[in-house]
Amino acid sequence: MKIVVIGASGTLGRAVCTELKTRHQVIEVGASHGDYHVDATNLPNVERLFHEIGRVDAVVTTMGKLHFGPFHDMTADQFWIGLRDKLMGQINVVLAAQHHVNDGGSFTLTSGILADEPIRHGINATTVNLAVEGFVRGAAIELPRGIRINAVSPTVLEESMDAYAAYFRGFEPVRAHRAALAYCRSVEGAQTGRVYRVGA
Amino acid sequence: MKIVVIGASGTLGRAVCTELKTRHQVIEVGASHGDYHVDATNLPNVERLFHEIGRVDAVVTTMGKLHFGPFHDMTADQFWIGLRDKLMGQINVVLAAQHHVNDGGSFTLTSGILADEPIRHGINATTVNLAVEGFVRGAAIELPRGIRINAVSPTVLEESMDAYAAYFRGFEPVRAHRAALAYCRSVEGAQTGRVYRVGA
Ligand SMILES: NC(=O)c1ccc[n+]([C@@H]2O[C@H](COP(=O)([O-])OP(=O)(O)OC[C@H]3O[C@@H](n4cnc5c(N)ncnc54)[C@H](OP(=O)(O)O)[C@@H]3O)[C@@H](O)[C@H]2O)c1
Ligand SMILES: NC(=O)c1ccc[n+]([C@@H]2O[C@H](COP(=O)([O-])OP(=O)(O)OC[C@H]3O[C@@H](n4cnc5c(N)ncnc54)[C@H](OP(=O)(O)O)[C@@H]3O)[C@@H](O)[C@H]2O)c1
Repeated sequence: MKIVVIGASGTLGRAVCTELKTRHQVIEVGASHGDYHVDATNLPNVERLFHEIGRVDAVVTTMGKLHFGPFHDMTADQFWIGLRDKLMGQINVVLAAQHHVNDGGSFTLTSGILADEPIRHGINATTVNLAVEGFVRGAAIELPRGIRINAVSPTVLEESMDAYAAYFRGFEPVRAHRAALAYCRSVEGAQTGRVYRVGA
Repeated sequence: MKIVVIGASGTLGRAVCTELKTRHQVIEVGASHGDYHVDATNLPNVERLFHEIGRVDAVVTTMGKLHFGPFHDMTADQFWIGLRDKLMGQINVVLAAQHHVNDGGSFTLTSGILADEPIRHGINATTVNLAVEGFVRGAAIELPRGIRINAVSPTVLEESMDAYAAYFRGFEPVRAHRAALAYCRSVEGAQTGRVYRVGA
């Protein structure tokens, strides 16, 4: 398969690419690293990317900023960060790429454990991750030509614990490699509208 | 109790106000109808509203535009409609009003059955409604002073079937009065972080 991974240079994306590359042609995309660069928050920019790349069999997104911080003095702009970046970034990819994915192809988006398990200062993440899962649920019944769409929702990654441990006390981290397997289940499987939870 | 209802003049809001008024003081707020006017999509505007109203015991929101339409040619701007209006509108209310709600008070927001049951052309609604439920899940563990937050997720209302029947074939509508009871369970009950599903 010809697979585009957007967020390929990230902690999660690197593991996903490593796993997919053992069997497939992977096109790595990032904001500033990779074979192609894109700003996923900008729909015309994403449309341009897929016009350049042409037809593909699968698109995986492992990207998306969130805002972490206390709710009592959160600003609307801070709340917009996750909506604009992790949510609309991934939605823009599906909006643009739906016309370039082959029949029976697939999308795999990224949610995260905070969808199910709220933590202090994580309200933007919980909101955005459930929104991503809602988007997948809605798109699964509307995408044409047998195109599938799923999300992967990993718990915190071992590789990210240096940065995130204070938020995730008592959570059992998983290695990025294990999360990457769920992306393969989505891309190489036959299900649609699923959320693959890893380490929940 | 002193209860603010934002969206009080709407199909759902009218029924909620009727029910709450049998036992409580209700302040009706809308975009252009009611005791006070506000544009909930504008945070400073909502902050001004609560400075005028002062301390309250409960805040209910029954408002929020969504975009309905096919996904294959949806624009980012169309997708933004529900995020800006139904999602951030309700979030702005909680951001602003958290500082004006009495100890042990509550918020009750509005989701909708499309969170659980996707329909054709309803992807914006499914995404936004699950985001609202995620927001409630996150806020429930972070609001201080025993302040609670829940959502009500009604199925389509009988009173709205003239406008929405074509989207909801086979769905059993409920009367707005029945949905209003769930708002009372939230406001007058003791739970937090709950989604009350009506007619699902
Ligand atoms: N890390 C975890 O523990 C964990 C756990 C669960 C879920 N997640 C989720 O997994 C996703 C990735 O997390 P991560 O920790 O791997 O992030 P990361 O290491 O910061 O990597 C982010 C990736 O996204 C790319 N990117 C950033 N902004 C972009 C934009 N506007 N358009 C296109 N690409 C953009 C980056 O490209 P450049 O390198 O070129 O800038 C990079 O490849 C996030 O949604 C996160 O919430 C992470
Ligand atoms: N109707 C249904 O069958 C149904 C079913 C499930 C869920 N819901 C959800 O319930 C909510 C209300 O639906 P509805 O059918 O009752 O809507 P509606 O009849 O159109 O009423 C909307 C209400 O919100 C107010 N409003 C509009 N824009 C506003 C803004 N920017 N700031 C503050 N207030 C604003 C309106 O005030 P003015 O009158 O002053 O303009 C009105 O009171 C929506 O979130 C909808 O998705 C509806």
